[in-house]
Amino acid sequence: MGDAFVSELIGTAILLLLGAGVVANVILPRTKGFGGGWLLINFGWGIAVFAGVYAAYRSGAHINPAVTIGLWASGAEEFAPGIEVTVLNGFLYVVAQIAGAAIGAALAFLAYKKHFDEDADPAVKLGVFSTGPELRSYGWNVVTETIGTFVLVFVVLAFGNTPSELGPLAVALLVVGIGASLGGPTGYAINPARDLGPRIAHALLPIRGKGSSDWSYAWVPIVGPLLGGVLAGLVASVYLG
Amino acid sequence: MGDAFVSELIGTAILLLLGAGVVANVILPRTKGFGGGWLLINFGWGIAVFAGVYAAYRSGAHINPAVTIGLWASGAEEFAPGIEVTVLNGFLYVVAQIAGAAIGAALAFLAYKKHFDEDADPAVKLGVFSTGPELRSYGWNVVTETIGTFVLVFVVLAFGNTPSELGPLAVALLVVGIGASLGGPTGYAINPARDLGPRIAHALLPIRGKGSSDWSYAWVPIVGPLLGGVLAGLVASVYLG
Amino acid sequence: MGDAFVSELIGTAILLLLGAGVVANVILPRTKGFGGGWLLINFGWGIAVFAGVYAAYRSGAHINPAVTIGLWASGAEEFAPGIEVTVLNGFLYVVAQIAGAAIGAALAFLAYKKHFDEDADPAVKLGVFSTGPELRSYGWNVVTETIGTFVLVFVVLAFGNTPSELGPLAVALLVVGIGASLGGPTGYAINPARDLGPRIAHALLPIRGKGSSDWSYAWVPIVGPLLGGVLAGLVASVYLG
Amino acid sequence: MGDAFVSELIGTAILLLLGAGVVANVILPRTKGFGGGWLLINFGWGIAVFAGVYAAYRSGAHINPAVTIGLWASGAEEFAPGIEVTVLNGFLYVVAQIAGAAIGAALAFLAYKKHFDEDADPAVKLGVFSTGPELRSYGWNVVTETIGTFVLVFVVLAFGNTPSELGPLAVALLVVGIGASLGGPTGYAINPARDLGPRIAHALLPIRGKGSSDWSYAWVPIVGPLLGGVLAGLVASVYLG
Repeated sequence: MGDAFVSELIGTAILLLLGAGVVANVILPRTKGFGGGWLLINFGWGIAVFAGVYAAYRSGAHINPAVTIGLWASGAEEFAPGIEVTVLNGFLYVVAQIAGAAIGAALAFLAYKKHFDEDADPAVKLGVFSTGPELRSYGWNVVTETIGTFVLVFVVLAFGNTPSELGPLAVALLVVGIGASLGGPTGYAINPARDLGPRIAHALLPIRGKGSSDWSYAWVPIVGPLLGGVLAGLVASVYLG
Repeated sequence: MGDAFVSELIGTAILLLLGAGVVANVILPRTKGFGGGWLLINFGWGIAVFAGVYAAYRSGAHINPAVTIGLWASGAEEFAPGIEVTVLNGFLYVVAQIAGAAIGAALAFLAYKKHFDEDADPAVKLGVFSTGPELRSYGWNVVTETIGTFVLVFVVLAFGNTPSELGPLAVALLVVGIGASLGGPTGYAINPARDLGPRIAHALLPIRGKGSSDWSYAWVPIVGPLLGGVLAGLVASVYLG
Repeated sequence: MGDAFVSELIGTAILLLLGAGVVANVILPRTKGFGGGWLLINFGWGIAVFAGVYAAYRSGAHINPAVTIGLWASGAEEFAPGIEVTVLNGFLYVVAQIAGAAIGAALAFLAYKKHFDEDADPAVKLGVFSTGPELRSYGWNVVTETIGTFVLVFVVLAFGNTPSELGPLAVALLVVGIGASLGGPTGYAINPARDLGPRIAHALLPIRGKGSSDWSYAWVPIVGPLLGGVLAGLVASVYLG
Repeated sequence: MGDAFVSELIGTAILLLLGAGVVANVILPRTKGFGGGWLLINFGWGIAVFAGVYAAYRSGAHINPAVTIGLWASGAEEFAPGIEVTVLNGFLYVVAQIAGAAIGAALAFLAYKKHFDEDADPAVKLGVFSTGPELRSYGWNVVTETIGTFVLVFVVLAFGNTPSELGPLAVALLVVGIGASLGGPTGYAINPARDLGPRIAHALLPIRGKGSSDWSYAWVPIVGPLLGGVLAGLVASVYLG
C-alpha cells in the first residue's frame, strides 16, 4: 500500500501541475497562452489526466476520490491489483490524492512565479488553483458537478467492456469532452482532491496580492463529485454487471 | 432486446448530455466557454459520441437511427450480436434513441439551469437543444444533412475493413471532422434522434423565456439523415461487399 | 485494378468533400464556422484524410499522386497488395484521384450551395476549391510545397517501421501537423489531385459570382508535391531500407 | 552508431522543420495561420515530435539531449537496441540532435522565405528559431524549463509500464500538454538541441532585417532541460524501478 500511496500522490501531483498550469497560462498576465480559450484549457486538463494516469500506474491511477468511491460503490473488490477495497485503503488513497494535488499546484505556482508576481485580480490568482462558479448557486452548482462526475466515472467503468488499445488516452479524451461540454458553469472540478488540495496550497503559499481562498464554496466540488461518483458506481453495478 | 433498448437509451442520453452541453457552454450567457468557437463545439460532439458509444456497448452502439437504417440498407443480418435486423427491433432502437436524446438534453438543461435562467434570445436557447440552418432553404438543408450523414454511415461501415485498435475513437474523430467540414450550413444533426428528442424536451421543459420549438424545420434533420443513411448502406453493400 | 480505380476515386472524393467543406465553413459568408481559424481548417483536412483512407482501403489508400509517385521512387514493387507498380497502373491511380477530387469538391459545393449564392469575393469562392499563395512567388511557392510533401511522404513511408495500432490516425495527425506548420505560405496542397481536380470543378460548375480559376498558379501545386514525393521516395529507399 | 547518428539528425530536423514552421505560421506577417493562437502552436509542436519520432526509429528516437541524459541518469544500459550508454555515444547523439535542429530550422526558413522577407520586429523573426521568456528572470526561467522537462522525461520513462498501442502518439500528446500547461512563461524549449541548433542557424542564415540572436539567454534552455532530464531519470530509477 505504500507504493500505491506514492503512486497516487505522484499521479495527482502531475495532474495538478499540468492542470493548474494550463489555467495559469490562459488567465495570468503576460503569458504566451493568455486568452487562449476554453478548448486550450480542456486539452490542458485532458493531457494532465493522461500524464497523471501513466505516472500513477502502480495504484490503478485513480488520482480522484470520486473514482475511488465510485469503484467502492460499483462493488469492485480491489482498488488496484493486490489492493483490497477497505475503508483504510480508501482513506489512504484520498489523503495521497489531496496531498499530491496540493504539491502539484505548488509546482505550477513555481513554474509561473513571475506571472503570479504581476498585478491581477485576486480571484484570477485563486482561479489557477481551485474552481469557482460563474453564477453562484450552491444547489445548482452541486447538480452540475454531480452530473459531470457521473459521466466521468460511469464511462471510465464502461471502458473495460469495449476492446481497444487506447490506454490512458480514452480517459484523457473523456476529460477533454466533459470540460468542453459540462465545464461551463463551475469549471469542472469533477474531483474533490483537484479542488481541495490546491485550495489548501493557495491558503498556505506566499502568493503576491492573493485574496480569499473562498472556503464558502469549497464544499461544492467535494460533495458534487462524491455524489456523482457514488451514483455512477451504483448504476454501473446494475448496468455494466 | 431489453438490454439493447436500455443500452441505446443510455448511450444516446450521454451523447446529448455532452452534445447539448457543449453548445450551451458556447452560446448561453456567462458560461466559461462562451464564444469558444466552432472547433470547441466539434470536439464536444465528437467526444459525446465517443462516450456514448462506450456506454451503449450492449447494443452495438448505434445511438443514431441513421446508423440503424443504414445497417438495414447494407444488408446486415444483425443490429448487434444476437439482435436480428427486424422491423420491430429497428423500431425499438429508434424509440430508445429518441427517448435517450430527450433525457440527455434535459440533463444538459439541468447542468446549465442558471444560465438558461439568464436573458437570451429564444433562438439561442432552442439552439442548445436542436439544430437550425443559417440560411433556411428546406431543399438545400436536406441536401446538406444527407451528404453529412452519408459520410458518417459510409465511413463507419468501412471501419471494419482496416485493422487498427482505435475503437470508438475512430467514429469520434469522424464526427469531429463532419462537424468541422459539413456542419456550417445546418449544424450537422446527421442523426434524427439527436434533433427530434431534444426538440420534444425543449417543448416540454419549463425553460425561462423560451420561444418556439421551430417544428416547421423538424422534418429536415429527420429526412436528410435517413436518406443519407440508406444511401450509405446501399453503396456500402455494393462497394464494401 | 478496376476495384482500385473506384477505391481511389471514392477515397479522394471523400477527402475533398471534407477538405473543401472545412474551408467553405471557415471562409464563406454566414456559415456556423465562419472565421473559425487555422486549427479548425487543419483538423478538417486531417480528418478528411482519415476518412478518405478508410474509404480507399482496397487500393492502399494513396488518394494523392505524390504518394503514388513516392512509392515508385522508393522502389516499392506494389502500389497495393496485388497491384504492381507499372506506368499504366500509376496513370490510372492518378486519373482516379483527380476525378475523385473534382467530384468531392462538387459535393462540397452542393452542401454549401446557399452560401456560395451569397455575395463574396471571387477569390474566396475559388479558395474553397483550390490553393493559392499569400505571397505569390512561383519559385518559393514550389519550395514550400516540395518541403511539405517531402515530410508527408517520407514520414508515411517511415510509419511501417514503428509498431503501433493507430492505423489511418497516424497519417491524419501528420496532415494536421503539416497544415499547422507548413501551410502558412501556400495553403498546403501537398497533393496535385487535391488542387487540380477541384480547380477543374471550379471552372465547370455554375458558381454564382465566380471569378478566375487562376490557372497561372495551377502548376505549382502539381510540380512541388511531385518533386517532394520523388525526393521522399528516394531518401526513404536509402534511409529506411 | 553511424545509423543512429543519421537517425537522430533526421528526426530532430523534422522536429524543428515542423516546430519552427508552426511558430512561423502564427507569428510571421501575412501567413494563413497568423494569430492562430497557442493551441495551434501546441499541436504543431506535438505533431512535430510525432513525425520526428517516426523518422528517428533507428536510434530510439531521443531527438532531445534531455532524454538522452535522462536515460543515462535512470540507469538504462542502452540508448537504443544495440547502442550502449557511453559518454561517446551520448556525445554523438547530442551533436546529431543539435545539427539536425539547425538544419530543420533552416528548412523552415526556406519554407517561409517570403514571409521572412516582410517587415517584422527582429524579435519575432528570432522567435521562429529559438525560445525566449515573456518575463526575463534567469533563475525562474530555469525553474520553469526544469519542471517542464522533468514532466516530459519522467512520463516518457513511465510509458513502458502501461500497455497501450499509441506508439509515438503518446509522446506527441504529452508535448501538446506540456506546451499548453507549462509553456506560458518561456515557450517550452524542454530540449537543449531544439533551442541551441536553431539559434546557431539564426546567427548564420541571411535573414532579412534580423537582429540579435540573444545569446545571453541561450544557456537557460540548455541548463533547465538538462537539470529536468537528470532529475526525471533519477526519480524514475527509484520509482519506476
